[in-house]
Amino acid sequence: MDNFYFVRFCCDVIQQFNLLLEYFYQSSGMELQKMAVALVACLCLLVFGATTSQAGHPAHPDPKLINPLRIMPEASSGDSVSVNNCLSWRLTVETNNKRNWNGVPEICGNYVAHYMTGKQYGYDCDAVVDIAIEYVKSLPIPRDGRSIWIFDIDDTALSNLPFFSRPDVFFGVKTDNAELEAEFYEFVLTAEVPVLEATLRLYQAVVEAGIKAVFLTGSSERSADARDKNLKAVGYHTWEKLILKPDSVTTSVQAFKSEVRDQLVAEGYRIEGNIGDQWADIVGSNVGRRTFKLPNPMYYGYY
Amino acid sequence: MDNFYFVRFCCDVIQQFNLLLEYFYQSSGMELQKMAVALVACLCLLVFGATTSQAGHPAHPDPKLINPLRIMPEASSGDSVSVNNCLSWRLTVETNNKRNWNGVPEICGNYVAHYMTGKQYGYDCDAVVDIAIEYVKSLPIPRDGRSIWIFDIDDTALSNLPFFSRPDVFFGVKTDNAELEAEFYEFVLTAEVPVLEATLRLYQAVVEAGIKAVFLTGSSERSADARDKNLKAVGYHTWEKLILKPDSVTTSVQAFKSEVRDQLVAEGYRIEGNIGDQWADIVGSNVGRRTFKLPNPMYYGYY
Repeated sequence: MDNFYFVRFCCDVIQQFNLLLEYFYQSSGMELQKMAVALVACLCLLVFGATTSQAGHPAHPDPKLINPLRIMPEASSGDSVSVNNCLSWRLTVETNNKRNWNGVPEICGNYVAHYMTGKQYGYDCDAVVDIAIEYVKSLPIPRDGRSIWIFDIDDTALSNLPFFSRPDVFFGVKTDNAELEAEFYEFVLTAEVPVLEATLRLYQAVVEAGIKAVFLTGSSERSADARDKNLKAVGYHTWEKLILKPDSVTTSVQAFKSEVRDQLVAEGYRIEGNIGDQWADIVGSNVGRRTFKLPNPMYYGYY
Repeated sequence: MDNFYFVRFCCDVIQQFNLLLEYFYQSSGMELQKMAVALVACLCLLVFGATTSQAGHPAHPDPKLINPLRIMPEASSGDSVSVNNCLSWRLTVETNNKRNWNGVPEICGNYVAHYMTGKQYGYDCDAVVDIAIEYVKSLPIPRDGRSIWIFDIDDTALSNLPFFSRPDVFFGVKTDNAELEAEFYEFVLTAEVPVLEATLRLYQAVVEAGIKAVFLTGSSERSADARDKNLKAVGYHTWEKLILKPDSVTTSVQAFKSEVRDQLVAEGYRIEGNIGDQWADIVGSNVGRRTFKLPNPMYYGYY
């Protein structure tokens, strides 16, 4: 057991206890004595656990840890000073308050890792898709075959989590560079990128409602075969169009996607809905009758 | 001490322990025995506390509580099934995935209460304002006096928290009706609505940068005197315009605000920024050079 992790674990526990005790105090406003006794006893046990645990293992002194109790900003609960509060940071990202950011703040790396690999990310994707499916079911779809739904691919139809969980990427803490970009391209070319389950569920509801799927991605056209194969392999069996970005297009993903949507509308399609994990997917022109934003705290549209 | 709250508190603690243990397990992958012993001991203590606490107080049997251990969805940590996950619910609200909702789900009432009265709401407002101030400082402002910044009032310039924390409103769980609306109007007319600290900080940076403040609100013009007095009393000393909604306007707040902004632009003003707590404040036409969304999980623009 690593001392560093154990101490941080204890910090987390103490912090959670404080929060809950405060919450409890606000709720009842009395009879805290027994709770305080239980709390103190628990803390004693934790300290005892830490001591005996440390005793049984070789020490790994970390020169950075002058006072481990001060590393609260890295705690997954995120209840800390504003500038290092990772819950706040994620909210500003997801609400498009923070823009054009490049890389997850190092201090929020563990928080994002925990969020992406824990249950909450899945819950959040499901919550968005539940609303989208409810909307799909409410739509009157004319039987003229002109209704389409636009799906982004990366971290929307498919999940790049296996790539972003690599140690040399660490959930977006390590920012892009030529080497990483090349590695990501290789990852795409494997055509083994896993499905994002929630989006597949939406896709099924969309197709069932008589709306045609259009996959629109900022990925290079050079990956067209891999993407085609990948999408089909994970369950996206049919679509009206699969549109990738030609290498000749040098505008931003947002501008590229807007132009494509303008063209689709000009061709007589009705964009009933549009889902992506990036704001660049759902702002601009002809965004669609309604847009849906999936969470993604790992990057801001730089691929 | 209320049994109901105590049992929920225990649920919270157990849930947090499980989460942290899981996190810890993922981090270290070994030496769980000592932690498990400490955990079990803590749980025993908590159960002991619950028992003695209950014994010392008169029972308040709640007929709804068939099995108190099943009320996990109400826990403030929100780690529960998707449909009742209040963290997910708030994210869908703040990202404008969920729209036109009317009232906080009853199951998320305690979560929202905890969020609004705890520290995180303040941290989140500060995080948005920090980004806005950074943006303000980056702006080249021409010295022609035509640069303006649009501030919404309710839950942006001022905080309606004292009203929403009333038991008969309970942070937005109790939805609007004629009676509540009349009560809210009375609250506004007191002209004693407190400041939202973060927004005042932005206001000061905006004015200092040579940008003029424009307060734009969906509140009725009948409250003009109260709003004027209230804004000045809390520190918004000067402004270019204070625009309230005339009773003759029957369109939505979003349409009303868009029309006003169109008019301001037609008059030659440049909207350098625009901040509000509702998406209705920052979508539509002429939204401004950049928009900022403050959190508000209590209502969706129905006042």
